[in-house]
Amino acid sequence: MIRAVLRYREHLSKFHSEINGNCEKLLFLRTMVTETTSFSPNFFFRQLFDRESCTYTYLLADVQSKEALIIDPVIELAERDAQLVKDLELTLKYAVNTHMHADHITGTGLLKKLVPGCKSVISKSSGAQADVYVQPGDEISFGSHQLEVRPTPGHTNGCVSYILHKQGIAFTGDALLIRGCGRTDFQEGDPKTLYNSVHTQIFSLPDNFLLYPAHDYKGQTVTTVAEEKKYNPRLSKSIEEFVKIMENLNLAYPKMIDKALPANKVCGLHEVN
Amino acid sequence: MIRAVLRYREHLSKFHSEINGNCEKLLFLRTMVTETTSFSPNFFFRQLFDRESCTYTYLLADVQSKEALIIDPVIELAERDAQLVKDLELTLKYAVNTHMHADHITGTGLLKKLVPGCKSVISKSSGAQADVYVQPGDEISFGSHQLEVRPTPGHTNGCVSYILHKQGIAFTGDALLIRGCGRTDFQEGDPKTLYNSVHTQIFSLPDNFLLYPAHDYKGQTVTTVAEEKKYNPRLSKSIEEFVKIMENLNLAYPKMIDKALPANKVCGLHEVN
Repeated sequence: MIRAVLRYREHLSKFHSEINGNCEKLLFLRTMVTETTSFSPNFFFRQLFDRESCTYTYLLADVQSKEALIIDPVIELAERDAQLVKDLELTLKYAVNTHMHADHITGTGLLKKLVPGCKSVISKSSGAQADVYVQPGDEISFGSHQLEVRPTPGHTNGCVSYILHKQGIAFTGDALLIRGCGRTDFQEGDPKTLYNSVHTQIFSLPDNFLLYPAHDYKGQTVTTVAEEKKYNPRLSKSIEEFVKIMENLNLAYPKMIDKALPANKVCGLHEVN
Repeated sequence: MIRAVLRYREHLSKFHSEINGNCEKLLFLRTMVTETTSFSPNFFFRQLFDRESCTYTYLLADVQSKEALIIDPVIELAERDAQLVKDLELTLKYAVNTHMHADHITGTGLLKKLVPGCKSVISKSSGAQADVYVQPGDEISFGSHQLEVRPTPGHTNGCVSYILHKQGIAFTGDALLIRGCGRTDFQEGDPKTLYNSVHTQIFSLPDNFLLYPAHDYKGQTVTTVAEEKKYNPRLSKSIEEFVKIMENLNLAYPKMIDKALPANKVCGLHEVN
């Protein structure tokens, strides 16, 4: 009898610890800070910032082959970026834009002059000139790494996001900003299109994917899919609420747009010729 | 005879490929972009920026226990930081300063009010008030992680750097900036002391350690020991040349110093009481 009671208590205790273990696992899955995908040892990553236009530029490279690409460089800082590429002994293959920017002039044209061999890249649907035009589904390779091109129109027709699946990273341009999103009230802006882009192309990525935007105005450097799905004050809402929010922002006319668009149509070379 | 020649050629070819392999390895070691230490999956890291004073703030956390600490917060952005801690469901244990800043008011005092339970931390030799005083060799724990406190005086007497050995990261405060360093012409600044601090405490770390400074004015976010040993225009020089450079900078009087120092002596609370 005593043995039976002891066995029963042992069973009960095992059962309890199993329940607690599962609860902890569930709790762990529900929380906002989850295990991120560690970068591969042969992946090099460097974030850069332009304090003037609050633009983020990203230098990515393959550690072994030294092939590199840069995303969304800014013309005023092209020399800084070229110097860094030189310091790090990298071969800059591509200078890539997420879209035809309206708030700063792209550095891709100047970088092509400063770093011979570098090619400019933009989406075909952007309507801008470049050496290489990418389309949704294309892959841009540097060393052993591949950037997937995903269509994320809505801020402009030609907006694309670039996804590095193995590193768990997406570069979202102006489609998704940290706790915000790009404007939809100029160029080919359309709030419904933007909402669908973010929900189908970005929020469908794993929750722990790191999202690096083209801009931030509050000193935030990165976010995750989980964070934006929960806390984005615009894109966490329904599509109807989102459209209402975007239609009532009453923002000022973009101060750089008249200078930036003609220059960016020709890869930023407008200003440096 | 033919067999002997074939064996000899085989040996020779093996020998050549061995030589080539070793050359590749050597070449790989010599280059600037080397394999970095991958962050542990249970380590959370977020860099934040203050565009006004160009200060970097760092939020670190243990993914499983949710214990967190923040390094060098800025008073004007304490609410942003407290909101992020709340969004991420973290328990902010410590608000840590690398030194008593002269260019902005620390956010540690305000964060203590916004996030109950959070304790302020500064080095004993800083002369500032805080809940916890650290000394060289101490460790600050959050979850399963430990920050080693290293003395790096020279910008001020109380400057320390914080090292996360397992993640391959050092937070260098104003001792070492990216391609630069902190001023040595006010407070207890001394160029010889700063040079020795950086060379013995930071440049002695492995070449691939990531260095995160307290400031950057050119939009650079991070550097490595290898980069600074080679490219830092001041600290890569001899101690005599460094002292000469620092004594001839002819910088303006720091515009925030008269407001920042009295406030930072009391953990930033000066301004919010």
